[in-house]
Amino acid sequence: MIICRARFKDRVLYGALDGERLIPIEGSIFADFAIGGEPIPLAGVRLLAPVGPSKIVAVGLNYKDHAAERGKPLPEEPLLFLKPSTAVIGPDEAIVYPHMSKRVDYEGELAVVIKRRAAQLSALEPVEPYLLGYTCFNDVTARDLQDKDKQFTRAKSFDTFAAIGPWIVTGLDPSNLEIKTHLNGKLRQSSNTRNLIFTIPDLVRFISNVMTLLPGDVITTGTPAGIGPMVPGDEVVVEIEGIGTLRNRVLRIREE
Amino acid sequence: MIICRARFKDRVLYGALDGERLIPIEGSIFADFAIGGEPIPLAGVRLLAPVGPSKIVAVGLNYKDHAAERGKPLPEEPLLFLKPSTAVIGPDEAIVYPHMSKRVDYEGELAVVIKRRAAQLSALEPVEPYLLGYTCFNDVTARDLQDKDKQFTRAKSFDTFAAIGPWIVTGLDPSNLEIKTHLNGKLRQSSNTRNLIFTIPDLVRFISNVMTLLPGDVITTGTPAGIGPMVPGDEVVVEIEGIGTLRNRVLRIREE
Repeated sequence: MIICRARFKDRVLYGALDGERLIPIEGSIFADFAIGGEPIPLAGVRLLAPVGPSKIVAVGLNYKDHAAERGKPLPEEPLLFLKPSTAVIGPDEAIVYPHMSKRVDYEGELAVVIKRRAAQLSALEPVEPYLLGYTCFNDVTARDLQDKDKQFTRAKSFDTFAAIGPWIVTGLDPSNLEIKTHLNGKLRQSSNTRNLIFTIPDLVRFISNVMTLLPGDVITTGTPAGIGPMVPGDEVVVEIEGIGTLRNRVLRIREE
Repeated sequence: MIICRARFKDRVLYGALDGERLIPIEGSIFADFAIGGEPIPLAGVRLLAPVGPSKIVAVGLNYKDHAAERGKPLPEEPLLFLKPSTAVIGPDEAIVYPHMSKRVDYEGELAVVIKRRAAQLSALEPVEPYLLGYTCFNDVTARDLQDKDKQFTRAKSFDTFAAIGPWIVTGLDPSNLEIKTHLNGKLRQSSNTRNLIFTIPDLVRFISNVMTLLPGDVITTGTPAGIGPMVPGDEVVVEIEGIGTLRNRVLRIREE
């Protein structure tokens, strides 16, 4: 199933995608819900970020080729950082270039949306019951500030630096999906999720032993090689097999 | 005014502290509210973490003596990291020692609670209208994992690693307050907020130019020298002049 969050006229709703229509969802997407009611043409809605996470847990250096291009050793354990909820944007929303930075990069990633509270999962416990589904993520990064601070937080936390969408796909096997990032129509990142160093079950179990994961929380799994800068006016697209495309434009912040 | 959040019988309420009593608060503490109704004896309530922040923005190396004891150069700009909302505990709640770590430290800090949405504040804009008040914070840190990961996130994000309280004090001048941390009754950290490298107005303005601050968000301003380890059974108290004391015990995680 493909779960969309959308603005339709004056309201925000969840719906299941059925061809070119959304069938409204009644109830919480994290619990029991029903699909039904009057279908809405997709052309008449605006898709929103499919979740409003309490936290985004991101993973650094989780593809070998990206660790190599950054000149970093492979981590022995997942390397975590957080992105704040205030950074979230949805499909077709603008990535705003902050005045503090002179280099802002795309990072296309596969993200997981948590369905059920997950804490202290054991090595033997299946993670699937805790996961709602998968989406595309652009872990936008002010590369100059990342290199300056060493801590990733400032560089990764600007408003609009967490693009999520276009929707959540359930029932997908995430272990072997092509992942590509295009900048102004040119292919810049191309890999496959089978190249992830720490797999999704590894990450969910590991993170759940650090911090409790809540319904709607997002884990984004790291970016492959091919990172690079964007400038205002650019269009960036993250495309993942079986999910779809997440498209955003870069804008200069309004001068005041 | 001293604003407390408390459990009283079956409900959670905000109240203004009046000697040994709480006077209930009606309305949002971030907007217009009224104080009135039947006073409740403080002895009959359990104090809770005074806010449920959407994010906790923490500042590294913001006292010279602490930067020196960690062998780190002073940052040119505030060094930010995030702690997740799932780490929050209140006064007298247990800090749970995680199985992943062999060294868990206290870090006593002064924290600020945001009252009004703050984004892109200019250098000339007064920050006070954006601030609700001040509280004590224990930025609990798995020191071994901080040193291993270099990124602070895992080390700082375990459940129970963000102790906040005992309450929020409004109308306080935060620029010259004694701050002390006691472990099992012994003084371990002792400084004054006048030693902060980046002051509270500096931090609020800087952070607001990275990420939008929301009502209830917490900025914790960094720890002075004297950090050190805790073990299960220890009692740790953060004491700040004009605010009060935040007391927590350390427990070993339940083995399963």
